[in-house]
This record gives sequence, C-alpha cells and structure tokens, in this order.
Amino acid sequence: MTDFTPKREDKFSFGLWTVGWLGRDPFGEATRSPLDPVEAVHRLSDLGAHGITFHDDDLVPFGSDATERSAIVSRFRGALDETGLAVPMVTTNLFSHPVFKDGGFTANDRDVRRFALRKVLRNVELAAELGAQTFVAWGGREGSESGAAKDVRAALDRYREAVDTVCAFIKERGYDMKLALEPKPNEPRGDILLPTVGHALAFINELEHGDIVGVNPEVGHEQMAGLNFAHGIAQALWAGKLFHIDLNGQNGIKYDQDLRFGAGDVRNAFFLVDLLENGGYEGPRHFDFKPPRTEDYDGVWASAAGCMRNYLILKERAAAFRADPRVKEALEAARVAELSTPTLSAGESVSDLLSEELDVEAAAARGMHFERLDQLAMDHLLGAN
Amino acid sequence: MTDFTPKREDKFSFGLWTVGWLGRDPFGEATRSPLDPVEAVHRLSDLGAHGITFHDDDLVPFGSDATERSAIVSRFRGALDETGLAVPMVTTNLFSHPVFKDGGFTANDRDVRRFALRKVLRNVELAAELGAQTFVAWGGREGSESGAAKDVRAALDRYREAVDTVCAFIKERGYDMKLALEPKPNEPRGDILLPTVGHALAFINELEHGDIVGVNPEVGHEQMAGLNFAHGIAQALWAGKLFHIDLNGQNGIKYDQDLRFGAGDVRNAFFLVDLLENGGYEGPRHFDFKPPRTEDYDGVWASAAGCMRNYLILKERAAAFRADPRVKEALEAARVAELSTPTLSAGESVSDLLSEELDVEAAAARGMHFERLDQLAMDHLLGAN
Amino acid sequence: MTDFTPKREDKFSFGLWTVGWLGRDPFGEATRSPLDPVEAVHRLSDLGAHGITFHDDDLVPFGSDATERSAIVSRFRGALDETGLAVPMVTTNLFSHPVFKDGGFTANDRDVRRFALRKVLRNVELAAELGAQTFVAWGGREGSESGAAKDVRAALDRYREAVDTVCAFIKERGYDMKLALEPKPNEPRGDILLPTVGHALAFINELEHGDIVGVNPEVGHEQMAGLNFAHGIAQALWAGKLFHIDLNGQNGIKYDQDLRFGAGDVRNAFFLVDLLENGGYEGPRHFDFKPPRTEDYDGVWASAAGCMRNYLILKERAAAFRADPRVKEALEAARVAELSTPTLSAGESVSDLLSEELDVEAAAARGMHFERLDQLAMDHLLGAN
Amino acid sequence: MTDFTPKREDKFSFGLWTVGWLGRDPFGEATRSPLDPVEAVHRLSDLGAHGITFHDDDLVPFGSDATERSAIVSRFRGALDETGLAVPMVTTNLFSHPVFKDGGFTANDRDVRRFALRKVLRNVELAAELGAQTFVAWGGREGSESGAAKDVRAALDRYREAVDTVCAFIKERGYDMKLALEPKPNEPRGDILLPTVGHALAFINELEHGDIVGVNPEVGHEQMAGLNFAHGIAQALWAGKLFHIDLNGQNGIKYDQDLRFGAGDVRNAFFLVDLLENGGYEGPRHFDFKPPRTEDYDGVWASAAGCMRNYLILKERAAAFRADPRVKEALEAARVAELSTPTLSAGESVSDLLSEELDVEAAAARGMHFERLDQLAMDHLLGAN
Repeated sequence: MTDFTPKREDKFSFGLWTVGWLGRDPFGEATRSPLDPVEAVHRLSDLGAHGITFHDDDLVPFGSDATERSAIVSRFRGALDETGLAVPMVTTNLFSHPVFKDGGFTANDRDVRRFALRKVLRNVELAAELGAQTFVAWGGREGSESGAAKDVRAALDRYREAVDTVCAFIKERGYDMKLALEPKPNEPRGDILLPTVGHALAFINELEHGDIVGVNPEVGHEQMAGLNFAHGIAQALWAGKLFHIDLNGQNGIKYDQDLRFGAGDVRNAFFLVDLLENGGYEGPRHFDFKPPRTEDYDGVWASAAGCMRNYLILKERAAAFRADPRVKEALEAARVAELSTPTLSAGESVSDLLSEELDVEAAAARGMHFERLDQLAMDHLLGAN
Repeated sequence: MTDFTPKREDKFSFGLWTVGWLGRDPFGEATRSPLDPVEAVHRLSDLGAHGITFHDDDLVPFGSDATERSAIVSRFRGALDETGLAVPMVTTNLFSHPVFKDGGFTANDRDVRRFALRKVLRNVELAAELGAQTFVAWGGREGSESGAAKDVRAALDRYREAVDTVCAFIKERGYDMKLALEPKPNEPRGDILLPTVGHALAFINELEHGDIVGVNPEVGHEQMAGLNFAHGIAQALWAGKLFHIDLNGQNGIKYDQDLRFGAGDVRNAFFLVDLLENGGYEGPRHFDFKPPRTEDYDGVWASAAGCMRNYLILKERAAAFRADPRVKEALEAARVAELSTPTLSAGESVSDLLSEELDVEAAAARGMHFERLDQLAMDHLLGAN
Repeated sequence: MTDFTPKREDKFSFGLWTVGWLGRDPFGEATRSPLDPVEAVHRLSDLGAHGITFHDDDLVPFGSDATERSAIVSRFRGALDETGLAVPMVTTNLFSHPVFKDGGFTANDRDVRRFALRKVLRNVELAAELGAQTFVAWGGREGSESGAAKDVRAALDRYREAVDTVCAFIKERGYDMKLALEPKPNEPRGDILLPTVGHALAFINELEHGDIVGVNPEVGHEQMAGLNFAHGIAQALWAGKLFHIDLNGQNGIKYDQDLRFGAGDVRNAFFLVDLLENGGYEGPRHFDFKPPRTEDYDGVWASAAGCMRNYLILKERAAAFRADPRVKEALEAARVAELSTPTLSAGESVSDLLSEELDVEAAAARGMHFERLDQLAMDHLLGAN
Repeated sequence: MTDFTPKREDKFSFGLWTVGWLGRDPFGEATRSPLDPVEAVHRLSDLGAHGITFHDDDLVPFGSDATERSAIVSRFRGALDETGLAVPMVTTNLFSHPVFKDGGFTANDRDVRRFALRKVLRNVELAAELGAQTFVAWGGREGSESGAAKDVRAALDRYREAVDTVCAFIKERGYDMKLALEPKPNEPRGDILLPTVGHALAFINELEHGDIVGVNPEVGHEQMAGLNFAHGIAQALWAGKLFHIDLNGQNGIKYDQDLRFGAGDVRNAFFLVDLLENGGYEGPRHFDFKPPRTEDYDGVWASAAGCMRNYLILKERAAAFRADPRVKEALEAARVAELSTPTLSAGESVSDLLSEELDVEAAAARGMHFERLDQLAMDHLLGAN
C-alpha cells in the first residue's frame, strides 16, 4: 500500500477561509469559534500543505487602518517564515460587505465600483508583498435576481474595464502576477455573470490585457450547472488558461456545498486528477472547501487531511490505470489515440477528401469498446484491479 | 388589443424537423405520420412565417443519390417560389445515423470524421444553392459518457480542424454564408463538448476562421444547465457573435423538452424578447420546438402558431414596459443606466482613483429598488399594468 | 381593470421572518437593520394582510427568560389587537442555534433531541396562547451530508416519536391545533429527511396521531427537486392533507431563493392558484419569501405587496380562464372531464372488461388538443385573450 | 483479492430490454440489431445471473395473437428450463404504443384506460404462468406537459381504481404475486404522476389493496430529482414497502441515462449496497440499465458483467467497512447508534421531560466527528484502507 502522506512537493494549498469557516449558513449561526490565522499556518504546515491563501478580509479585517494591517501582516509573515509555508495565491472579497450587495466591478452604483477597484488594487499590493503569483477574482455578487435590474452588456463593459485596469496596474508595477477569474453560475446572486469556465474564457478574449488573465475553476461551481468538471478543465488547458484550480466536492445541482475533495462525484475527480497530473498543469492543488458545521476543530483538520489524502489516492490510481497493459489494450480497442491524428492528411485538399467513399454500414457496426475501458477505470478507482 | 397575427417582416422561421417531428421518443413510437416538406412550406407560409430551415437529411433522406436529391430539391424549391418562403438557414445532421454514434467531427474513428466532413461540405453546397446565409452546426454526438473514452483536448483540436476546414471551403467558394455553432450540455451524449454559449464563444476564439463563426443558442439548451438564457444571449451579443437563435420552451433542468416558445420560463422569455428587439439582433426568430406527441396535425399547427403569437405578445409587452413613465422612473431609481458610465473618468489615473474615499456605510444603506422594477415588469408581462 | 388591492378576506399572511429578513446570506453580512415585530404587524396590516406568523425565536429571542417572554408577547399581542391581524400559524426554529447542527428531532445526541422536543412543546403553548390553529414544523436540520453519519431508519423512528409526542400533547391540552410538516430536499443539510410532499405524506401514514398531521408545502422547496408544485399540491389535496401552504418563487434547481410569489415559474403559479381557488383549500395564503438583500425597507414592502398583487392577478386570470367559452370547448376537445368517469362501469366485472375490443390504431390517431388548451391558458395568464 | 464472480445466490437479474436495447434514442437510430430473447437467457445465465425479467411487449410483440404468443412463451420457457434462469419479475409496457400517448391508467380517454387495464391483466396472467412473484408497474406516460390538460386529482382516482382492480384480480386468482410501483419524476412526460418514492408510498396508503402493493425504486429516477437514493430506499424499507429494486447509474439531474450500476454516483451506490445487504432486503438485485449505443454486443455483455462486478465489489467494501474496528470507534464517536434509543424513556411523561435542563452551549460545542467517519468510508470504497 502506497503512503498517502502529503509532502511539500505535492503543492497542496488551502484557503484561510476554508479551515477558518465558522459554520454560519443561511439558516444557522456559527458552530465554531474563530481560528487564529497563525494557528492555521502551523496546522496546515504540520499536515503537509505547501501553501495558504486568503481573501484580503480573511487576514486583515475590513476597515482596518494601516497600522493594524501592518501588524497583522507582519505577524502572519512570521508564521510563514517559521513554517516555510508559501502564499501562492491571494484573492479578493467583493461580496461580504453590504456595500457590495449589487456587485463590485459591476454594481449599478459607480462609486461602489470605484471603491471595489480601490479595494482590489490595494489587495494586489498585499498579494505582491507576500509573493503570491496568482490573484484570483471571484465576482460572486456580479449578477442579478431580476431581468431589468442589470444591463448585462453594460455590466460586461464594466467588468472588462475593471479587469483591464487591475492588469494594467500589475504590469505597471512590474509584479510577477497573473489574474485568474473564478466562474460560478449562481449563489449568492440568482444568476452570476461569467457563470461557467466557458463564459469566463470567452470574456478573457475580449480583454486588452488578456495575456495575464486565465481561469480558476472550482469543482463544485461547474457541477452546480450539471457540467462535467474534467471536460471544462480540459478546455481551459486547451486554451492555455488554467492558471489555478479550486478543488472540492459537490453532490450535483443544488446549493454550493464545498465538501472536501473526493466527496461528491469521485469518478469525475479520478478523471480530473488523471488530467491534472498528465495534462501539464503545474500550479497549486488548491482546496476551497468548507468543513461541515457539524464538526469541531478535530473534524476541521480531519477534513483538510482528507482532501489531500483523497487527491493522493486518486493520483496513485490514475497512474496505475495508465500503466496497466489491459488499459493500454482497451484504449487501443477504443481508438482513443486515433483522435490525435488530424482528420485531413498533411497537404490534403478538400477535393481529395470529397472523392473518398466510406462503407457507412460497416463503419457504423464497429463497437467502440468504451464500457470495457470504463470498467477498467472503475476497477482502478476502487482498487479492485 | 393589439393584433398578434404574424407577418413576413417579423422574420419567423421554423425547422422542417419541428412541425415534421413524428413524436418518436426514447420510450415510444411515432404518433404522427410523415409530413410532406412541400405541405410544411405551404402551411407555414399560410400561418405567416417568413422562412423554413432543415437538416440535410430532413429534406433529402440519408443515402439518396444525386438524381433523387435533385428531384427533391427542385420540388421543394417550387414550393418556396410559390409561397415566397425563404430558407434563411440550413443545418447538418451528424447525429441520427449510427455511424455517428461516437461523434462526427470528433469521432475517435478518423474515417468517420472524414465522412462527417464530406457530409457537411455537401450540405454547405445545398445551403448555398437555396440561398441560406447561415449554416448551423449542432454537435450533438460530440461528447462522451465515460471519462477515458474521449481525449477532450484532442477532440477540441479535431473540432477546430473541422470547423476551420468548412469555413475555408465557404470562403473559397465565395458563399455569402456564416457558420453558427449550437451549444448543448448533454443529451444524447452524457456530456457534450461546447456545452454552453460560453464554451462555444471561447472555442471560436481559437479558430483560424473565427471571423465567420458565431453561435446559435437554443433557449432550452442553456436552461438544461440552469443558466439564464437572456444573460447568455447578452454575452453573445456583446461579443458580436449572435448569428442565429433557436427559440423554444423548457421547464428547468431535465431532458430536452423543446416546448413551444413561451411555454416554460415565460419571465425569462419576456426579458429575452426585450433584449432581441432592443439589442441589435436582426436575424431570424427561429423556432426549434417539438409539438408534443399527444397532438395530431391540428395540434402541430396550433403549436406552431402559438410560438409566433407568444413572441408577438411578449414583444408588445416589452415595448409597453420600456415606454411606461413609471418604468423609466423605476429604472432611474435602480441606477440601471449608471452602469453604462465608465468606472474611471476619461484620462483618470489609478492614483487619482486610489486617493478617493467612500462613505461605505452610507453607500451600503442605499436601497437598489429592484423589486419595484421587477414588479412593474411582471405587471407588463401579465398585462396588468 | 380589476382592482388588485388585498383585503382581509383574501387570507394573506406573512412570516415575521420574511419582511424581517436582514439579508445575511452564506457570503455576505446583513444589509438591513432589525425590524420591530410591532412595526411589522402594523405595516402588514396596512398593506391588507390578514395574518402574521413566526418562529418562536423570531418573536422571543432564544434564551429569553419568562419575564422577557411575557413582556414581548404582551406587546406583540397589543399590536395584533390594535390592527386586527391574526396569528393563523406558528412555527418552530430547530435549525438556527448551533445545538441543532445535527438536527432537532433526529439529532444523534439524545439530549439534543430532548431539548428540541421541550422547545417545540413550549412553542406549541405559545401558539395556542395566540390562537394559532396550525403549527408548522420544518425539519431543516434533520438530515446529513455523509452516508454513514445518519441511520435513516432510526431517524424516521425518532421523527415519528417526536411528532406523535407533540400531537399527543396538543390533544391532551385540548388545543384546536393541527400540525403541518414542511418538506425540503436539501439546504442547509446535504440531504434532508422527508425531502418532498410525497415523502412527508408517506411518513404521516406511519404516525399514531396522523389524523391531526398534514403538510405545509413550499413552492420553492418542491421546485428545488425539479417537481411540478401544482401536481404535488393536488396529491396533498387528494389525500386530504393540505393543511397550510408557503407561497414564494424559485428559478429552478439551485439554492433556496425565496423570491416573492409570482417570480420564478409564473406559469406553474397560475395553475397553482387555479387549483387552490377551485380545489377546496380554505387555509391562509401564506407567503414565505425573502426580499432580496439589495433592497432597503421600501423594497421590502414593495416586495410584500407584490406577493399579494401577483396572487390576485393570477386569481382573476384563473377565473377568466375557467369562464371562457373557448376554454370550455377546448377542455371538452381534450376530454379532460372524461377522466372523472370511472374506468369500470358500476358493477362491471373484470371478465366483462376483458371481453371488450378496442380499435387501437384509431384510438392512437386521435389528437389530444392539449396545445390549443395550453395556449388559451397562456393567453389568459398574459391577459392577451 | 476477493473473487467478484457472480453466483446464482447473489440474485442478480436483468431486464430483457436492457441487454436487448438497440440503441435508438431521441436523436438517433438503432446501432445494434435485435437480440433473440433465448440468446439473452443463455448469455445472462453464462454470466452468472439468477433471473431475467421483461415487459410483455419485449417478449411477445404488441398485437401478437394467441398462437404466436404461445409459441414464443413456450420457446422462452425452454431456455429458462435449460439454464435454470428464473423470471422473478414481469412488468408492463403502457408507454411505447402511440395509443398510450396520454397515459394508460390515467389517459383522459376512457377506452384507452380500459384497454390499458386489459393489457395489464393479461400480462399478470403471463407473469403468473412464468412464476414471477413481483409485477412492476411503471406509469411512464401517466402525466402531462401542460397544466390544464390533466386533472391530477381525477388522475389519482383513476390510478387508484386501476391498481386496486389489478390487485383484486391477483387475489381472486390466488396468484402469489405482489405489485410494485416504479416512480419517476419526468421523461417521457414533462411531469409524471407519483414522481418519487415518497409520492408512490403516499399513494399506496390510499389503496384498498395496498397490502400487496409496494415500490420498485430505480437509482437514476430518484437522482433525476436530485434525491439521495439510499435515503429513499431507507424510507421504503422503514415503511415495509421495498418489494423490488432497479439498479443502474446516473450522472445527476439530466435525461434518464440508465448507465450500468456503479457508474454515476458510486459513493451513494456504496451506501446503497451497505443498506441493502444489512437492511433486510431479500429480493432480486435487478439491473435496469442501457448499454451505451456506442457499444456492439461485446460491449453489451461487458456492461452487464460490469453491473454485477460493481455490486460485488461494493458489497465486499461495505462488509469490510462495517467490520473495521476503526469504523466502529468512529461510529461510536459520531453517536450513530444513540439515535436508536428512544428520545423519551419508557413510561416517561411530557412533564418529566419539560422539567429537564440542558447546557445548550456545551452541547452545541460537541463535534460530531462525521468527517473522520466519512473518510473511513471513502478509504474502504477506494480500497485504500
């Protein structure tokens, strides 16, 4: 049996807001008392994580003055230095304070948009100060509940203006930092702008500074739209835009569950890990989950450890799957690699193509042998190979 | 009471496969006998439609030879000439024949991909022959049910190759024709590639000939992913890529229902029509629905008439909504137009922005007045204003 | 144009927690300041409501002592007396306090279950004191996020024990009160017990005191499972168990939106009102919604007024629909009433039945004419008849 | 490594329509040629199955006369005798023929209802003839797409009349047979009556002959409503009404996928098998799936074998999970068994209960330790314990 103990080189990172979630939900009060960020750093380090991430307000409470901010950051940096934990990513909170009730970058109120932009720019400075190379922006309040309240095209104009302004600032300052947009279909708004990986990728193409903008997809967010997460990640990789990733679990289309990674659709998680490990993604494996509010802090750390353990189990299983000679044979039978051969031959003209004939009925009769292949994947996932 | 009788200039068009659907579904046999395409042309013309569209195989059965094809097309064209009905769009069927069971453009089998490409190229010729300016491609079989069976990045490579090949052919032939991709999240495949408007727009950006490629979103397809259809259309318009549209109805996340337009989420339909009529879309209002299999042909034509009637009712209501002084006042109170003002002033620098302060609590306390606005929309929708 | 001003006899009631919702959600802080229950009484009365309802903790904060409770109740009763507003229903909060994090009646911890039972019994006394004839129990925390954590059959045993204990108490005290269970599929738990109207009805059949137990279905809760709300209400009425109803709006399968009534699926709302008005339901029309957190108190009251207005518009439309001679004719053509004729004739034996023959093809060819009927419903809904 | 070869005593059964599905779907033609029922019997027997089941029309084509029927049944019985395969269940097809387009038992047309009843009664005779002890009724066409077309309460009256008539017939004939209703939320109708296990259980309670009526839940059908299948099965077991079960796989809320068992939500499948094996269910483990249309017959048999293999793997894992001392300890820490202790002590009065006090804050602070328990379940599922 392989050892599933996480190591620094596994590049696991956690949001401060994940292990620090107090358990307050739409129908209930907090079930846990606040967690000191410094303790979070030490505990995550002890568990084998590589990094910690945060929203500005997670670390420095909203409204703190410069002195408070400085003291907090300095103390936090001390813990980082002591443990060797990195801050690979920082993200922004444009959703908790009531001033953002109609959005940050796309609020109807211009002064709110300007405030949001200032908040993000200052947060980018903090991110750079702590060495973060990725800045994530989840526009959770950019959206609407009713049709006439939001001019979506104007909102996309403002969204573009804001993202381009932030990117210009990053470039001007010479920061080694990229921006990653995090899509989500709904919750807390009835409908959120840039609801899926696809919509975010399409938006990036309209930016002036799209070269430093990519996506930060979250397992549960795509699954809240019933989409195949591994497929979405593949399209993001194909577009060269997978800059960061949020790993967690979700049981289908419902409220945002933020289960630990592996819970929810573990079959899709298997194919996701297979893709991440073999698809050229080199960024952090970042967990964005919420330990259920039934748990005390023992449960919180058990849940965090479970995220990493499940990733490592799936990684081992994916490697064994790819190495298995029966799998290679099944892939061959399913003609999976044949899809990498261009449909037209090099230099072939359309008229060459048009002159060819196919025995359609014979071609139609060929079995694809996908079920055998999928059962082998299942066997490997379940360790029953 | 306004007259809701459709006129040619309303640009309503119908798929031949819609009124011609025989009612065969996964659990039951056909409930209607075949409809002669020529009769479809006459009936739709009588109902006030402007155009008729079809998949190659709807008009010319799969496997017909050149003589048969010519006779069929000539007879069909006769009916068009007689009625004045146009063929604004033609689309391709890469999903019905068993040869496409693993896809057309992205089938693992290269010879199937080559066959699919030939079929589409010949269909483009037919489309041009009949004057269609839009060629729609719905890749309903491009996808998979199991994780290892399809290399999604290779599939996207092949998808791109195919679409670029078709576009190069269109340009080479000098056809006045654009291509529109139709997204769908699932059904008949477990997961379909390019599952939403966003994914399709993002894909188009990776094409060599993306200048003549846009999207053909379908109401029900986006709603099968729980997405706000009007929002998706707004993003497509914003990107300059709404080339065509499929109007129908869907009751939420379930199998593809293809109800007549207006059935399903009529509130979203109201905001959609408002957007189409005021958003610069000038293409056909194309209905892609299935008259329920409970209906005989009386029901089929009642259902087709209902699609157009509902559009016209909603169009009238949207116009009245926009003209109502109380609505103008409510939009003002909701600061909807303020979103069109850039967040930064012309020439304003980031350091100017950063030096500003906001009374956050005061800003947070301002009500957005969206509920009043939405109730006015409801009143207009229901004609209770 | 009919007057859509609510009157007492319309029996509209509102939860104190609806207009009093402060706008705190999973991702954001409160956007409104607390509302005095006495003010709520006055404002709702002014708007034309008939009643106000509450969870114990809405009125009397959790942990209040007897003196505080008495002062609060007495002041509240004063407002009721002054306005004439009734308290038709009281409900229990077994979900907000962290002690209920694993449930109330079905918590694994027995002492928590005992505490929950005590809380409900005292709440029943309060309900009786204020004249409420319905006591609603929503078991929002009765459920689980993981498979092994909850023994569902044991949980149903405890649920039954608790409900029977409360009912026995009601009977023993001689209260004129019925209990109504409110189903919900998920949120805040990953899966909630008694997830739909069907499951709750089935559960009631296993109770000792099921005679005084019925259901309190909520529009959005059933729609979160993709179910047809009007169908569920019809089954509850058919079983004689529709004791109360929660009206609101929901846009399909996603987090619990609690939109104002009429928003969301307004077509289903039309058929719901048609059913309630013609189906023998005589209880309150109770709104359980949340004014969006974008709103200030002007928006809150606009939203509450909108709930009632929409109900009255739909009521008028349903009446006009049923009175329209074309509708009667269309219902006839659709053989809707024929379904009320028993399939077997009075006294007919099975062998009589078996000896009959049907011309199956002829029967299959008959159209059902449902599309025409549905378009007439649409016309009436939209006031375009 | 355990041997996962199926044996007769595992009680695996398959529908003839599963391995015999030709691959015709709403968008495509059949991809496989017809399978001789006799071959199906032999192949399933060879694979280790215990039984085969069918709809009347699967075995005896619709419209066959008595002579044809007799020849077909006799040949089929020959294969059963030869192999020892049983027919534990027979079911009825009231959905394929166009005559049932508006339903069987609840069609608006009375003569169709009478025809449906005759068809079922004759099918019950066939079932008895072949020794089936369970008769399944899936009312796939009992429903509607539009609100006014179906009087749901009248439909439930007719549904009850039909089921009671069939049950009376079974009793009168002295057949050793029970009836099991199969719920489904939608597809092929927009909304189907008795949409979930809960609704079916509630309906059974209104029957005269409910004593011989239970449910036949299908994995994918409940998951199409986003419900936890294992929870639904637990409620059916609790009510003593789990008469039969349909095992398959489904990837969340979308069209009915009928994947092989284990595909889809394998975590829920794990807890389901755990419940079936330890919960007193003794009926067949019946697979109701569709081998994907990408497959030829090799793939069909691979897929059927996969259903059984996955069940056996999960059965082994569930047994190991329950036997693991760490799991026992974790269950203890999570107080799972404590839920089986009644909330009130034997003979305890409500006033005794009311006099007790709880230290609420202390109770709230206790962690439930569910995450550790769930991770152990995951470890066992993945064979990584």
